[in-house]
Amino acid sequence: MNNDIRIGILTISDRASQGEYEDKGGPAIRDWLTLAIKGAWEAIARIISDDEVLIEATLRELSDREGCCLIITTGGTGPALRDVTPEATEKVCSKMLPGFGEQMRSVSLASVPTAILSRQTAGIRGQSLIINLPGKPAAIAECLHAVFPAVPYCIDLIGGPYLETHPDFCASFRPVGARRG
Amino acid sequence: MNNDIRIGILTISDRASQGEYEDKGGPAIRDWLTLAIKGAWEAIARIISDDEVLIEATLRELSDREGCCLIITTGGTGPALRDVTPEATEKVCSKMLPGFGEQMRSVSLASVPTAILSRQTAGIRGQSLIINLPGKPAAIAECLHAVFPAVPYCIDLIGGPYLETHPDFCASFRPVGARRG
Amino acid sequence: MNNDIRIGILTISDRASQGEYEDKGGPAIRDWLTLAIKGAWEAIARIISDDEVLIEATLRELSDREGCCLIITTGGTGPALRDVTPEATEKVCSKMLPGFGEQMRSVSLASVPTAILSRQTAGIRGQSLIINLPGKPAAIAECLHAVFPAVPYCIDLIGGPYLETHPDFCASFRPVGARRG
Repeated sequence: MNNDIRIGILTISDRASQGEYEDKGGPAIRDWLTLAIKGAWEAIARIISDDEVLIEATLRELSDREGCCLIITTGGTGPALRDVTPEATEKVCSKMLPGFGEQMRSVSLASVPTAILSRQTAGIRGQSLIINLPGKPAAIAECLHAVFPAVPYCIDLIGGPYLETHPDFCASFRPVGARRG
Repeated sequence: MNNDIRIGILTISDRASQGEYEDKGGPAIRDWLTLAIKGAWEAIARIISDDEVLIEATLRELSDREGCCLIITTGGTGPALRDVTPEATEKVCSKMLPGFGEQMRSVSLASVPTAILSRQTAGIRGQSLIINLPGKPAAIAECLHAVFPAVPYCIDLIGGPYLETHPDFCASFRPVGARRG
Repeated sequence: MNNDIRIGILTISDRASQGEYEDKGGPAIRDWLTLAIKGAWEAIARIISDDEVLIEATLRELSDREGCCLIITTGGTGPALRDVTPEATEKVCSKMLPGFGEQMRSVSLASVPTAILSRQTAGIRGQSLIINLPGKPAAIAECLHAVFPAVPYCIDLIGGPYLETHPDFCASFRPVGARRG
């Protein structure tokens, strides 16, 4: 099996996509993943506006053409009119994983009561796991620490490459009897 | 900007709407809001039966015609045949906020194991935030304390008026850099 | 009223349905219910493959023809391609109860971080409560302990028979004023 690990990092922000604002979410995700993942992996980064059709098209491209086993979005998860990332995610996924959103909100609630406004979710499209993160860089590490331990095993279950993490930084978990790399 | 604060309070109950039963949920919501909100606001109260089409029509009226920035329902969130408030809410909203239901159930679980039967949710219609509360008056204050700290900032994000709360009773939260009233 | 308590136990597994694998989930559910429920009840057990149309048909049969007030499934709740139990459940239910999945994931998270991959849910079809459990026998008792205290009152609310539990093993809860058996 091809064990190339390609990860899509998708920044969704009207202002960042127009250069009015420096993208901080995308680099924060890349930095976190660099500390977490053992061995080689490739980042496929994109910055787009909060346009639902464009988000859907970009998620499809990162999954179907770029072959990303994991796609992490940042931005567009709030209640404002232009926040449509969760809707676009649900539209391109065949199944949803509500536990990701529950767990991220639960962890963020310890920091801010407005965590309940975050609508982020996760889902599966083909052999890609798509996870929405909030736009605020401060929340990115917090959310990744909360859900990433389950990500390598999830990617196993959908037929993707074998990911390993640095246990001191992020202790990923596979049940006894799960396949080895 | 118009800073009129109009809040819809919608009691959904077959028995209360037919006068067989005194509405306790609506007044409990109004009393709680009176203690929580600083400054003037206007309550637009309605009592209707558990009829899905009527609930949808009333939510639309409170949002589109009455201009309520916040609509709080009570009743119709359980598993019984006539409990259809969450379905009606989802039908009229353009986006859902699952964190509200998660947080309310999580808080109510500390009191009763049957909290998992509550299907209440929240969502956005235009410039209105719609929140479902259970029908039982005892659960109303508990649920409002659990989610109201996030409500003023949510209303900011959907372009509504600037709400302030009495911090001793309900400590609402806005991130650093959020607009001021 | 007919107080016959019939409970569907539905094992959903390609391997178990083809005899390649002994069904451990179904018997684990039956054993747990035997310890929990006071008085007579009848188990209607089925073992089927992870086929969405077949799952839907079997859930309809257990609800509509077999008259089960409760249907507990095991298996098919993960992120893999063949895991479609939650989708089939949602298809046959008129209303969903998201609190069940939230509570089961929350309890399982104390054991394993991969609990967020479980997509299990619960819902109502006519006079039947349908609850999805994971496939792993170890998680079955944990999940049933987490949600069963709310099950008898839920069955009351949808017009089913009066269930009682052994309080030392599973302390079910009905609010003051709920009907008696």
